[in-house]
Amino acid sequence: MATLKVPAAVPAVADDCEQLRKAFEGWGTNEELIISILGHRDAAQRRAIRRAYAETYGQELLRSITDEISGDFERAVILWTLDPAERDAVLANEAARKWQPGNRVLVEIACARSSAQLFAVRQAYHDRFKHSLEEDVAAHATGDFRKLLVPLVTAYRYEGQEVNTRLAHSEAKILHEKIHHKKYSDDEIIRILTTRSKAQLLATFNYYNDEYGHRINKDLKGDPKDEFLQTLRAVIRCFTCPERYLEKVARQAIAGLGTDENALTRVITTRAEVDLKLIAEAYQKRNSVPLERAVAGDTSGDYERLLLALLGQE
Amino acid sequence: MATLKVPAAVPAVADDCEQLRKAFEGWGTNEELIISILGHRDAAQRRAIRRAYAETYGQELLRSITDEISGDFERAVILWTLDPAERDAVLANEAARKWQPGNRVLVEIACARSSAQLFAVRQAYHDRFKHSLEEDVAAHATGDFRKLLVPLVTAYRYEGQEVNTRLAHSEAKILHEKIHHKKYSDDEIIRILTTRSKAQLLATFNYYNDEYGHRINKDLKGDPKDEFLQTLRAVIRCFTCPERYLEKVARQAIAGLGTDENALTRVITTRAEVDLKLIAEAYQKRNSVPLERAVAGDTSGDYERLLLALLGQE
Repeated sequence: MATLKVPAAVPAVADDCEQLRKAFEGWGTNEELIISILGHRDAAQRRAIRRAYAETYGQELLRSITDEISGDFERAVILWTLDPAERDAVLANEAARKWQPGNRVLVEIACARSSAQLFAVRQAYHDRFKHSLEEDVAAHATGDFRKLLVPLVTAYRYEGQEVNTRLAHSEAKILHEKIHHKKYSDDEIIRILTTRSKAQLLATFNYYNDEYGHRINKDLKGDPKDEFLQTLRAVIRCFTCPERYLEKVARQAIAGLGTDENALTRVITTRAEVDLKLIAEAYQKRNSVPLERAVAGDTSGDYERLLLALLGQE
Repeated sequence: MATLKVPAAVPAVADDCEQLRKAFEGWGTNEELIISILGHRDAAQRRAIRRAYAETYGQELLRSITDEISGDFERAVILWTLDPAERDAVLANEAARKWQPGNRVLVEIACARSSAQLFAVRQAYHDRFKHSLEEDVAAHATGDFRKLLVPLVTAYRYEGQEVNTRLAHSEAKILHEKIHHKKYSDDEIIRILTTRSKAQLLATFNYYNDEYGHRINKDLKGDPKDEFLQTLRAVIRCFTCPERYLEKVARQAIAGLGTDENALTRVITTRAEVDLKLIAEAYQKRNSVPLERAVAGDTSGDYERLLLALLGQE
């Protein structure tokens, strides 16, 4: 359910590199050319372009980009051009280093990726930052957030569809009891959310709903300023309905005065090759406006053009 | 520094399979033939034999072994024949399911393996047990042990040699302060031990020693019956001197009346292809007896013969 559009006949990698080099050279930069190439190549193609570009011109493609463009457009081109695991590592590193309770990027990366993808992020993190992801999260996050985030980012969940019904019942009961007593950061809540497989958790949440008459996330709605509760809800939503969770991130980025460009760029660059079509459908359904039109209304220039290209606009 | 002896001219895989099949067939089992083959093949060769055996005879090699032999010999042959990651997954699963405070197998697997090896164990655990390792550890271990063991088994430590000296100083100070106040399970102690790279931890422990005049493990010697303290010391020893730690495991397995066959089998099967020569040297130095002779004195029969083969005896 990707939105990325790759042309039927993709030019040779050497040609793409040459065109990009031309886009950077001379007076001014040809931003449209950059978008027309990088905005229509998949991860493997972008990787091949980066490799060939560095070999041909003796300079990293990302360095050339950084030298030529700036602002939100630069950030979007850079993030998009990176490999998915590398991109998540960069986002996770920013989120860890400037950690604050309201930042839910780490939750998104830990919970809306497959186990293998999350592990690839940890490998890319080593290569790029000479640290482990968990070490940076543990060193910056504090209190209950650390207790939750460290096991979230280090999880390697089983991904089979097997479900243990008895366990789902007993753990739904534990969750209900702890939530009922407002022990939101209890070890057992954290153990269940950070170690069980997604299939097992869905069964647990379903049983919770059936047995107690509310979705678990409804019972986790307390003080809207309680960032820990919001983080727990984000974890659960990333497991149960990642595209609706990400629709909300996009909606909040666009809503109101001003735009949260970082969040909008993140949703579009991380999902254009994954499920951005589903996110856009959820957006249209929820807001009665196509996501493309909302993005066009809230952004401008080359930044707008790149986002719309990634959203699949012809 | 392996002890395993593989012949210069290894028979074809098909021949090994045929010989093994012969060893299982007819009245009685030819244990010596089993040892002469499997006890002298490396992990890749054993893997090839398992694959070819299953294809040729329509039965898993491990199943044929289990049908024919028993007891300590069976357990040793099975563990040895498994791939290293699979073997560790089996050992970790036993340790998690029957978890008790005195069991330090999980520490050994989490701390005396490389980051990539530990991750391979987690992958093998999925395949074999349809669960994640951390989920089983978290479900069985309790209290402070859970708080320590879950991050230990989920760590993917950075393995570069870079050391941040300032950090080593500040974290040595934190460790000293917490230990001084007997806060052995403090979040900060656990954070440091479970997330920092081994190179960084060695620098921290060295600085601790220089600054406070004692090795950290000396300061962690309290009540000898305190299993948590012993576990912390095991963690640190697995980082600082794994072969001396494992020498001690072997020594305690052999010492006194009776033998701890599980521990002895574990040390020999997990290290024969790694560093068993170093462990044997440490043993000889510490006990003034060669490890081979001590093993021969404490075991018997085919079990003894397999262990001695893995110890490199001609």
